[in-house]
Amino acid sequence: MSESSPVSLVALLHGPDKPGLVARTAGWIFGRGGNILHADQHRDADANIFFQRIEWVPAGDDLAKEADLFTKIARDELGMEVRVARSDAKPKIAVFVSKIDHCFHDLLLRWKAGEMPCTVALVISNHPDMEAACANYGVPFHFIPVTKENKAQAEAEEVALCRAAGVELVVMARYMQILSDWFIANIGCPVINIHHSFLPAFAGARPYEQAYKRGVKLIGATAHYATAKLDEGPIIQQAVAAVNHRHSVADLQRKGRDLEKSVLAQAVRWHLENRILTFANKTVVFD
Amino acid sequence: MSESSPVSLVALLHGPDKPGLVARTAGWIFGRGGNILHADQHRDADANIFFQRIEWVPAGDDLAKEADLFTKIARDELGMEVRVARSDAKPKIAVFVSKIDHCFHDLLLRWKAGEMPCTVALVISNHPDMEAACANYGVPFHFIPVTKENKAQAEAEEVALCRAAGVELVVMARYMQILSDWFIANIGCPVINIHHSFLPAFAGARPYEQAYKRGVKLIGATAHYATAKLDEGPIIQQAVAAVNHRHSVADLQRKGRDLEKSVLAQAVRWHLENRILTFANKTVVFD
Amino acid sequence: MSESSPVSLVALLHGPDKPGLVARTAGWIFGRGGNILHADQHRDADANIFFQRIEWVPAGDDLAKEADLFTKIARDELGMEVRVARSDAKPKIAVFVSKIDHCFHDLLLRWKAGEMPCTVALVISNHPDMEAACANYGVPFHFIPVTKENKAQAEAEEVALCRAAGVELVVMARYMQILSDWFIANIGCPVINIHHSFLPAFAGARPYEQAYKRGVKLIGATAHYATAKLDEGPIIQQAVAAVNHRHSVADLQRKGRDLEKSVLAQAVRWHLENRILTFANKTVVFD
Amino acid sequence: MSESSPVSLVALLHGPDKPGLVARTAGWIFGRGGNILHADQHRDADANIFFQRIEWVPAGDDLAKEADLFTKIARDELGMEVRVARSDAKPKIAVFVSKIDHCFHDLLLRWKAGEMPCTVALVISNHPDMEAACANYGVPFHFIPVTKENKAQAEAEEVALCRAAGVELVVMARYMQILSDWFIANIGCPVINIHHSFLPAFAGARPYEQAYKRGVKLIGATAHYATAKLDEGPIIQQAVAAVNHRHSVADLQRKGRDLEKSVLAQAVRWHLENRILTFANKTVVFD
Repeated sequence: MSESSPVSLVALLHGPDKPGLVARTAGWIFGRGGNILHADQHRDADANIFFQRIEWVPAGDDLAKEADLFTKIARDELGMEVRVARSDAKPKIAVFVSKIDHCFHDLLLRWKAGEMPCTVALVISNHPDMEAACANYGVPFHFIPVTKENKAQAEAEEVALCRAAGVELVVMARYMQILSDWFIANIGCPVINIHHSFLPAFAGARPYEQAYKRGVKLIGATAHYATAKLDEGPIIQQAVAAVNHRHSVADLQRKGRDLEKSVLAQAVRWHLENRILTFANKTVVFD
Repeated sequence: MSESSPVSLVALLHGPDKPGLVARTAGWIFGRGGNILHADQHRDADANIFFQRIEWVPAGDDLAKEADLFTKIARDELGMEVRVARSDAKPKIAVFVSKIDHCFHDLLLRWKAGEMPCTVALVISNHPDMEAACANYGVPFHFIPVTKENKAQAEAEEVALCRAAGVELVVMARYMQILSDWFIANIGCPVINIHHSFLPAFAGARPYEQAYKRGVKLIGATAHYATAKLDEGPIIQQAVAAVNHRHSVADLQRKGRDLEKSVLAQAVRWHLENRILTFANKTVVFD
Repeated sequence: MSESSPVSLVALLHGPDKPGLVARTAGWIFGRGGNILHADQHRDADANIFFQRIEWVPAGDDLAKEADLFTKIARDELGMEVRVARSDAKPKIAVFVSKIDHCFHDLLLRWKAGEMPCTVALVISNHPDMEAACANYGVPFHFIPVTKENKAQAEAEEVALCRAAGVELVVMARYMQILSDWFIANIGCPVINIHHSFLPAFAGARPYEQAYKRGVKLIGATAHYATAKLDEGPIIQQAVAAVNHRHSVADLQRKGRDLEKSVLAQAVRWHLENRILTFANKTVVFD
Repeated sequence: MSESSPVSLVALLHGPDKPGLVARTAGWIFGRGGNILHADQHRDADANIFFQRIEWVPAGDDLAKEADLFTKIARDELGMEVRVARSDAKPKIAVFVSKIDHCFHDLLLRWKAGEMPCTVALVISNHPDMEAACANYGVPFHFIPVTKENKAQAEAEEVALCRAAGVELVVMARYMQILSDWFIANIGCPVINIHHSFLPAFAGARPYEQAYKRGVKLIGATAHYATAKLDEGPIIQQAVAAVNHRHSVADLQRKGRDLEKSVLAQAVRWHLENRILTFANKTVVFD
């Protein structure tokens, strides 16, 4: 979208399917003088659920009011769960990273290049290594060491920092700590994680070693929302690359880094553009 | 779609963009008691053109009447070009083939397997080789030799055969004759061709030899609508495969055959499912 | 290879690594006046194993003698396991198929088109459906029904048929019966199977249903050598295709068919061209 | 290769094919007590040229002497052009960049991460923008503005800087100036360029605009050695990504950036690992 485009509203809806939903959302917007830019819907035939992403330029200047009115209609009259965002919003995100830094730099450089409609509010790491890089990028850096003993306290500190900063999305950019159920339950916003295998293959630790040992001809990466069950949350995006008998574990890691970067960046961008709905541990991505 | 799904209507529209188009088509269908299954739209921002594919189950049994009424509204009130088809339609297609038969077998086997919602009305070839195969597939075969001298007459015969059979789509499945402007102008239906390169690279004759000579690291295939300008019609689908210095021209041809088959089949299936609109020598594919 | 190329020998070797192996095989061939066309090697650093594929045109006409001499040298002096084949060999293969026929037709058509250097000696099926197709392709068809009760006897019949025909490779082209340990132990030649997922994900029954349920964004296919452990044999080739929330299980199956065809054909061709060595439940593919 | 591996030599040879070349290079190395790690060869059947990459650990400590002796044998006795490098060499490279910085950051970050066996000796730009980033990366930055009037002088300065620094490879990381024949003739080392299309399609200026206008369904990137003919040098690597009617030129540019980064990095890495030979305007890449 060019800089001079008018600000639009993006609504993500889902709920029990019934006749007329497309007509009613579009009709309401048209009736209020709005101009629909995009409207995409999906029906889950098994569960009879309707999903929609609809984007429009409202007639007047009071976008907050239009968003509220639409939310009310969608909720009360259509029975949908609904979320409405401005197209020019820059949600605050937190990036968690350990020592392996390719996803971290990739996200930050894309953000600097204008590919990521967000504000990087803070970076949290269990190692001090990224401090200088964060200074260069101009983002606050928090070093929170994690040990077996202090893990609960460290997580409490992380949650407190994110909540104080108003973080709306946490991105685990190869953060090498398993998040506790408490963290997931209390962080108060979605968490996107990158796992370095094509899930459900090679969940858990050391996936490249597992892949090498099994002799697969493809390695992969998976971006997913983190849930209480490790590596079992809703999958957002996956990609693979071909490997062969010549590739060592180090080669798989090197090739995998490229997959991890692009898959994580794609997932985060889709999330920030309000393109993802989750249902029944799966994602609907309105690309 | 399972056998027992109710028959739906699919409309493809395009025309000058204006506010309310999504609301008005959806609203009209809802107002007549129809149930919208899919609605996908696109705006060409440069040309200010609106494109839509909308699929719905009408309320009553008279699908022809609903299709006519929708057509009238879309044309007269909304200013759109419009085409409406039944989801259970099996348009008649003609397959043109020469001696190279991989695309021919691929299409016929997919048709037999139920992947292609059409009727293969006839096969036309400038060689007699496919006669027995056509008998096995149960489709009429027409051998129409083409020479420099008889080309105009041969094309007239081809056009007459297709028109007499009510053919609604011609598929050039590696038919190794250049179609004249006369043929394109008179065949009376769209023509899909498969070109064995990633157009616009290597248009014209012997693309694999051209690719080999240039030393490219990817070969490709392109399905497009045939127009009077050779290899310059609207592109429907493209795919590539990696090659390296070890591959001879024969290897490129072999690898290319797999691309040609899948790209052509995909393009034909999209066409038969009424997913393609063309504008300004480009395609909008509602996948 | 063009028709008029001289016949060459292809040796596949593997065994404990030691210095000078490349020099000694190449030197022996050169010393006998042979002309090396290709030589490719690999070392498994973990296990200290040397793998080589070497192809050469011997000086004289007595290829059998050269093959024997090379075998002796490689075995007795270099301590390698070795297999030598003529480049013009057409090993006999058996194709097993059930009702789902896309891999079957794909293999047979590639064979007819000259892509598969083999002789299709027989087709075995637990259903009678492919009888007419086999007649058209000109290959013997054997209908061997399999039930819970007769399974051991049916397998005995299959093994007897393959052994009597001198079959050197069995291809499971979507044969929907689990092979017993007895079959694997007694068939007397390698067995290539196609599994319709990216193993190790979704092993076992109904992989597309499993993939749909998990909400993956990629589906895959895996060709592997069958072993006594179901879906756990050495992987030869894998491929994937992107899917999204719009795709039903039937769509995954349709998209998957294209993967299954190309992955299985590639694996069989590599095997027939003597490009595959197995070790430690993994494959070395000299592509 | 792990840090503790012994240093090896890598030779790249090519010249007129003749019998015994594989045996003679391997035999020579074996005779001197060397241990061959890799040996890969290729024959261009059309031109009767032999290509080889051979890597070995020599017996003694005097690698320079072994390299010299091998060079002499290969040149004088086998009639080959030959180049021998140590596996622990870190050739000096120069990176040229304009304002678009994704390839620049990608290369520098990969270099910092140890993926690129080289020394980044200097960065040259026709804009001052990358100065601070270069300081952060710890590499010398040279701002050399280029105008129509001063172009010859600017190029002379660039060549002087590279020659003074002993640069062995120049990487054009989206440097938006056309290099003159004089520059190519005088830089004294190979130049790798990234072009943002799948060449030979869309050579020249504004390839994404060209691709958008033509309505292709794939966009691409091509890394090639720069020659006097713009965008016509030997192709090293290419990749593509799928696009559709929804993608604007800006979307193509964004998607293309990911292709450009990975394709350029791959080409540079292959070059630095001595894997590329060029012949007849094509590359042989021993991957």
